[in-house]
Amino acid sequence: MIVVKVGGSAGIDYDAVCADIAGRWKAGERLILVHGGSGETNRLAEALGHPPRFVTSPSGYTSRFTDRQTLEIFEMVYCGKMNKGIVERLQRLGVNAVGLSGLDGRIFEGRHKDSVRVVEDGKTKILRGDHTGTVEKVNTGLLELLLSAGYLPVLTPPASSYEGVAINVDGDRAAAALAVALKAEALLLLSNVPGLLRHFPDEASLIREIPAAEVESYLEFAQDRMKKKVLGAAEAVKGGVGRVIFGDARAGQPVSAALGGAGTVVS
Amino acid sequence: MIVVKVGGSAGIDYDAVCADIAGRWKAGERLILVHGGSGETNRLAEALGHPPRFVTSPSGYTSRFTDRQTLEIFEMVYCGKMNKGIVERLQRLGVNAVGLSGLDGRIFEGRHKDSVRVVEDGKTKILRGDHTGTVEKVNTGLLELLLSAGYLPVLTPPASSYEGVAINVDGDRAAAALAVALKAEALLLLSNVPGLLRHFPDEASLIREIPAAEVESYLEFAQDRMKKKVLGAAEAVKGGVGRVIFGDARAGQPVSAALGGAGTVVS
Repeated sequence: MIVVKVGGSAGIDYDAVCADIAGRWKAGERLILVHGGSGETNRLAEALGHPPRFVTSPSGYTSRFTDRQTLEIFEMVYCGKMNKGIVERLQRLGVNAVGLSGLDGRIFEGRHKDSVRVVEDGKTKILRGDHTGTVEKVNTGLLELLLSAGYLPVLTPPASSYEGVAINVDGDRAAAALAVALKAEALLLLSNVPGLLRHFPDEASLIREIPAAEVESYLEFAQDRMKKKVLGAAEAVKGGVGRVIFGDARAGQPVSAALGGAGTVVS
Repeated sequence: MIVVKVGGSAGIDYDAVCADIAGRWKAGERLILVHGGSGETNRLAEALGHPPRFVTSPSGYTSRFTDRQTLEIFEMVYCGKMNKGIVERLQRLGVNAVGLSGLDGRIFEGRHKDSVRVVEDGKTKILRGDHTGTVEKVNTGLLELLLSAGYLPVLTPPASSYEGVAINVDGDRAAAALAVALKAEALLLLSNVPGLLRHFPDEASLIREIPAAEVESYLEFAQDRMKKKVLGAAEAVKGGVGRVIFGDARAGQPVSAALGGAGTVVS
């Protein structure tokens, strides 16, 4: 089992990702696709006059502050446009894909954090009304049911709180939790860079290999959203996933290239 | 098996619909929920500067002209905001709901009509670039898999063409095709009116009963979107569904009231 997470930033070639996945799926490989939608969510939020608000935690992680209106915009993009766009691409390629959010069948469950500690202008504040959380539990039953019947699951945040409330969760860490729960051989975190860069944005400074035991020490090289990928990678290898690969989803055969060792390999 | 279709017009009380369904589901009734999202789609399309375009066929049926951009707006509302909002409500009520579009697992399949004949200013024209169609085939395998494992399916358009292209289909007629395919005892078409009215919009003129053999002759009383409901009802009863009920989803217990005979009963 391979878990492929593809991000939602500018430059990602979803046609290339889907074509590569379709080829491998038809050749008998079992995989699950997890996707993001951050860039498009920002555009829609701006267009609707409710611009995104990103907050930084005291430990330096950036996340989207998700009030109820933002959650609905988030769902429109992630669960609507992005998820069904990917399912349509796969169906056109003859793969019987099924698109689901973490709410559906409570695939992704975690605690709802209604308030969040953030640093703004050098001060720590508490913001309330947040719909966020972290995936703590992956309910694999529905996924195994689908896979055993020949359907390819295409998953996206949000997750469900233990009370059934929709919560925005980080897609990379959700994919890591999924890879652990499914005992996946590999977790691919594909985005619009070649991998983890020692000197961002210099693509020639790609870090080729990271020993699993040292992955957290590489956090210093990670910019912004790449931090969550490094954190997810650390969680995945600790949880028993054989390899985590940060790969490039902008062209070519993104999944095959990453599995072939292109990008940054954590193992 | 009961198929409940709830519309997407103003005034519908989704909390009431979900609470009623949750109670019946927990009491052991098996059902599938199909929903719309037309009103919200119109609002989003206006807000995004791509207002809806409704066209009328030579036989008098109104439908949404669905170019690719409209299809994406449609998917954002139907598959994102509406579908996940309903799944979240049911999850909060302790029902393990799974939200899917007709693209997922190709649950709803039909022919893609790229061009549509419309009447504008008294003239018949042909418009191209349409993403519409009619559900001709319901692939029940995925639904039966979910139901047998205890999940409540929550379905929405779009459907999939035979080539895997997303197509906008009428939700009432999709629900009718589903009810036929599942040999449902009853199909409930719930909206923001008490049922079929002899003198629209006079709610006191509610038609209580329609004999199955005469349903098409009642088309003359149907306004706008109600025409598709009457057509769907005719298709369902012809296909062997025991009862079709046009009911009110604005308050109370909409499913239980309709099953109890409120609204217009076709049988």
